Amino acid sequence: MNYDSILSYIKPDKKEKTEVEELSNKIINLLDSLSLEKDIPSKAVLVGSVAKGTWLSGKADIDIFLNFPLDTSLQDLKKNGLLLGHECIKKMGGVAEERYASHPYVTGTIEGYEIDFVPCYAIKNSSELKSAVDRTNLHNIYIQENLKKDQLNEVLLLKKFMYGVETYGSEFKVGGFAGYLCELLILEYGTFEGVLKAAAHLWKPGLIIDLEDYHTGENFTEPLVVVDPVDKNRNVAAALTLQKMSEFVAASRNFLGNPKEDYFSKINLKGNFKLVEKLLTNRGTETILISFKPPEIPSDAIYPQLKKTSDSISQKLSDEGFIVENKGYWTDEVDLAVLILELSSGSLPEYKKNVGPELWNEFHSTKFLEKYGNKAYLEKDRWVVDIPRKQRDVYRFLNYYLQKENIHHLKTGKHLKKKILEHYEIQNISDFMGKTTHPEILEFLFRFLNPGVHLWR
Amino acid sequence: MNYDSILSYIKPDKKEKTEVEELSNKIINLLDSLSLEKDIPSKAVLVGSVAKGTWLSGKADIDIFLNFPLDTSLQDLKKNGLLLGHECIKKMGGVAEERYASHPYVTGTIEGYEIDFVPCYAIKNSSELKSAVDRTNLHNIYIQENLKKDQLNEVLLLKKFMYGVETYGSEFKVGGFAGYLCELLILEYGTFEGVLKAAAHLWKPGLIIDLEDYHTGENFTEPLVVVDPVDKNRNVAAALTLQKMSEFVAASRNFLGNPKEDYFSKINLKGNFKLVEKLLTNRGTETILISFKPPEIPSDAIYPQLKKTSDSISQKLSDEGFIVENKGYWTDEVDLAVLILELSSGSLPEYKKNVGPELWNEFHSTKFLEKYGNKAYLEKDRWVVDIPRKQRDVYRFLNYYLQKENIHHLKTGKHLKKKILEHYEIQNISDFMGKTTHPEILEFLFRFLNPGVHLWR
Repeated sequence: MNYDSILSYIKPDKKEKTEVEELSNKIINLLDSLSLEKDIPSKAVLVGSVAKGTWLSGKADIDIFLNFPLDTSLQDLKKNGLLLGHECIKKMGGVAEERYASHPYVTGTIEGYEIDFVPCYAIKNSSELKSAVDRTNLHNIYIQENLKKDQLNEVLLLKKFMYGVETYGSEFKVGGFAGYLCELLILEYGTFEGVLKAAAHLWKPGLIIDLEDYHTGENFTEPLVVVDPVDKNRNVAAALTLQKMSEFVAASRNFLGNPKEDYFSKINLKGNFKLVEKLLTNRGTETILISFKPPEIPSDAIYPQLKKTSDSISQKLSDEGFIVENKGYWTDEVDLAVLILELSSGSLPEYKKNVGPELWNEFHSTKFLEKYGNKAYLEKDRWVVDIPRKQRDVYRFLNYYLQKENIHHLKTGKHLKKKILEHYEIQNISDFMGKTTHPEILEFLFRFLNPGVHLWR
Repeated sequence: MNYDSILSYIKPDKKEKTEVEELSNKIINLLDSLSLEKDIPSKAVLVGSVAKGTWLSGKADIDIFLNFPLDTSLQDLKKNGLLLGHECIKKMGGVAEERYASHPYVTGTIEGYEIDFVPCYAIKNSSELKSAVDRTNLHNIYIQENLKKDQLNEVLLLKKFMYGVETYGSEFKVGGFAGYLCELLILEYGTFEGVLKAAAHLWKPGLIIDLEDYHTGENFTEPLVVVDPVDKNRNVAAALTLQKMSEFVAASRNFLGNPKEDYFSKINLKGNFKLVEKLLTNRGTETILISFKPPEIPSDAIYPQLKKTSDSISQKLSDEGFIVENKGYWTDEVDLAVLILELSSGSLPEYKKNVGPELWNEFHSTKFLEKYGNKAYLEKDRWVVDIPRKQRDVYRFLNYYLQKENIHHLKTGKHLKKKILEHYEIQNISDFMGKTTHPEILEFLFRFLNPGVHLWR
């Protein structure tokens, strides 16, 4: 495998480096002079992949932390932090947007780069932590001090590989590996191939990586535990799902068994979409799509609510006797959210077996028989009665549960609930396909049919 | 509840008593003079309900045991026992038929009564047991010695009640209570109502009744344990299924809550049959009947094979993904045997989820991927692949497994297998109903739809 060839286009060249560094310095100087001017006791620091030199070419997100003394009130920190961000963006002729993580921050687009301005406390070690973002400074210092210069390329290869096989990113939408986690993996295993070989052959759920020998790994329950070198009480891999951990292991094996440069780019699925409808309608199943407008909340809040709602509807269907073969969800985060459910059949028998108490419990048996009379019968020592179903048809069943009076039976997440109650649509796959040619939806449906497609090249 | 009124028609009157006793004596005398004449060292003894005075009017089965000395060879016992039986039936102008329990015996129909001639060893206690039937002599003696005269009526009421609610009989077809077991229950609880009250309110699975305080009950695992007073190593209720034990408890509660004379007769279902087809076809299910000729083997051998085959087919269907809502079997033991399967749907999706090894097992993962290639995907940390089904249709599926080359995948019982391979028919309920008006089959189907119908009056 010729990694140099890959590095030649994923590693920022001299021009990009100079551009990013100059822009960063300009902003930091501007921020510090603004602080001085407004008598705000903050110091601007470049953090993140740009500071560490681990950004992928064309993906430089400039993260600037505005460090306040520990005795600053949270209120002042927020107020002055946002103020400095807005002022800076204005002066640089950029476009500002306020966002929320554990506390508010400002994002600005300046000269084509996305730049985050995050107010935080200037802590020296994790015992001084006041907010979740404060730790980032310490991460920055740790990587700068420990990552060898020749390992920067290894980090870039690992991040790009993760990106290509769709395991990169710790946001809820992905549930994969954060950038900092990739850097720590290179520290642990030395090289890109070292990480892949370990994952391919040695990793098991419950694995603990503990670079600073804190011996606190047993306190965590996630499938992969990477004790944060700057905070022994944090698992850097806490957001990594078993699914994405497994997919990284599988992709590592696939790559090592047959290395191809294509693993470093996202798989190209265009051209496969024509088949989607035919494939979905020929499966002898009932594929149902519930569409609605996504709520205007941060991306990291939408996906857990979609997952929760999808799981809850699927559970209700199973409880009733429908067989959910597959399920999924998708949203463009702006106009459309879709839940998809593939059932082995869209209708159920007229009667439903209602299993009652054991005969030996005379009290509950009597109650059961008072209700159902001599329609009851015994299956071994348990009372059973066949009762007619209220809804035999899945569309009626779903419409019932998505009504205002009944939706509380589902676990939906409150923002999603509100949107569904405003308007939703239930369609079978043919009706749905008849109305959409949106390439993103076609890709979502294609992936629904081919859930392992991104693991191979 | 006026039990006298019931006893008036279930208790043999003087005429029946005299007739049965005279016939029994005549046969015993004849057998003993035949033994003398042929120099066979056997002594005829009347056993069973006639000897104990616990037979129901019109149901006197005369059981005669031909007792041989313990030093007789099994060969001589069989040969001479059968000889005496045949001679006796011939002299009395009856019709003989040889049957098999644990060893052969002869049954003859003489003057309208069915009479069993059973060769056995004349044992004095259970330690001398040589064959399963030997114990009957001891049962006879125990009941004659322990059952009080005024308890005879209680036994009759209990047996007739059991008969009415369809829990009487220890043969496989029923799996219920034997006559001797009914007698022991009266010894334990004193009266008919005593038994029903105990069953209704006190019985639980694991109950031990141990009239002679042998303390061996813990050795048995059946739902009801009644230690045989003449053999501490035998559970008299061994053949009682949890189903029939439960049904007796339910019927006891129903009777005690609302006593009706009708509980002492089998429920009359005629007139309900017209609805059967309509009910079965309106359930939104696929009801399938597999018909074939029953093998010519004893009744107690047919039913276990039918049950085994029904369970095995049902299991195969479930393994494939079909949902078996209900199942059953029926035979007239001569011309027709029927397995019935009610499925929620008669067809399955095109694809079947094939769940493979956990990803962490690299060896098995590699084997799995060699087989299925990049069609595989991960569900959490487990490999899965969707494979097209060979048979999506239940009729094709069943026809496949009932062929000579494939039937070994089912557990059928060898006699049944032979008959199925000779000829079978698979029909849906409409086709089946179109060809039959046999009242017994209609009753079977009606009961299939109303499995608790015999528990209430």
